Amino acid sequence: MATIDRKKQIVDAATNSFSLFGYKATTIDQIAKIANVGKGTIYTFYKNKEELFHEIISSLIREMKDVVETILEEDLPFYEKADRALFKLLEFRTDHQLMIKLIQEEKELGTPAVKEVIQNIENMIIDYLKNIIQKSIEKGEIKPCNPELTAFVMLKLYIALIFDWDQLRKPLEKDEISDLFKLYLLNGLSNR
Amino acid sequence: MATIDRKKQIVDAATNSFSLFGYKATTIDQIAKIANVGKGTIYTFYKNKEELFHEIISSLIREMKDVVETILEEDLPFYEKADRALFKLLEFRTDHQLMIKLIQEEKELGTPAVKEVIQNIENMIIDYLKNIIQKSIEKGEIKPCNPELTAFVMLKLYIALIFDWDQLRKPLEKDEISDLFKLYLLNGLSNR
Repeated sequence: MATIDRKKQIVDAATNSFSLFGYKATTIDQIAKIANVGKGTIYTFYKNKEELFHEIISSLIREMKDVVETILEEDLPFYEKADRALFKLLEFRTDHQLMIKLIQEEKELGTPAVKEVIQNIENMIIDYLKNIIQKSIEKGEIKPCNPELTAFVMLKLYIALIFDWDQLRKPLEKDEISDLFKLYLLNGLSNR
Repeated sequence: MATIDRKKQIVDAATNSFSLFGYKATTIDQIAKIANVGKGTIYTFYKNKEELFHEIISSLIREMKDVVETILEEDLPFYEKADRALFKLLEFRTDHQLMIKLIQEEKELGTPAVKEVIQNIENMIIDYLKNIIQKSIEKGEIKPCNPELTAFVMLKLYIALIFDWDQLRKPLEKDEISDLFKLYLLNGLSNR
């Protein structure tokens, strides 16, 4: 088997294991079993579980960045840009069991390595949103506001609607989430 | 010393210990030392640490309910009611080191007993907010929306601005938080 295939096989197996059992409960032994290779083979590519995890997360972040950049490049009004980015990120959630598992693990176990990764992903998202918000303020599409804080609030609202509400009540549909974003953040609740 | 004084002394000592060291790290031994009574004295009032904790939390919840009920009874527009309730709850935060410590402990350690308590407090707040929101929809002050979900979003935004933003960046002033609530939730960001 070619080296590149083996490496991919290991990365896929590790992604599966992290997605199913979380970061803490995954071992190199387990990954070797799922990938159907010897432990030694894994160590020729990666020093340890941490390194493998970081490679997987890096490509996840790269994928998310690509998605957002494509949307940023289009010449659309704020409203539509935000809506598109949101939908893309919603798709990301359902397609990536790993993301769900990591957020759950962070909440339940507070695993430090996972905490750090989630913090990095959140900071990346906030930076991108900040960029979109800044441009929209300059264009006069939205009211003057602190772009970083607004990005932070958007992300928190997103996480609350996607993850926290799900744990308590009936999960929301993609359309509902999009409508709620518009109601709460863009148009506001006030009738005056 | 009268029984009632002793009991109060124990409750005060326990509140201090929970506030300083959190729930997990507090022991009956420690409470006895701070209260300057024997361990046996504590056990004449409380079966264990859990019972003492629940008594303290119950009175905390009662206090919060009283504050909200007083505001609910006043005949004010939604905007002012929400603003007042928010300010009162903000005062609560700074006055109650216990609340801050518990939220921190839940985030960092995920202590199950603390998780449950915070969940109870959050549910209580959501129920009260739901009530205010429902009435405001009926009066036509705010747009039609799911009152429970809106209450949930308000609480999450509040927690994000008070606790999560503080951990990353410069803490926000009470006035700033109040203004942000209006901008994000009531008036909305859109300039259209």
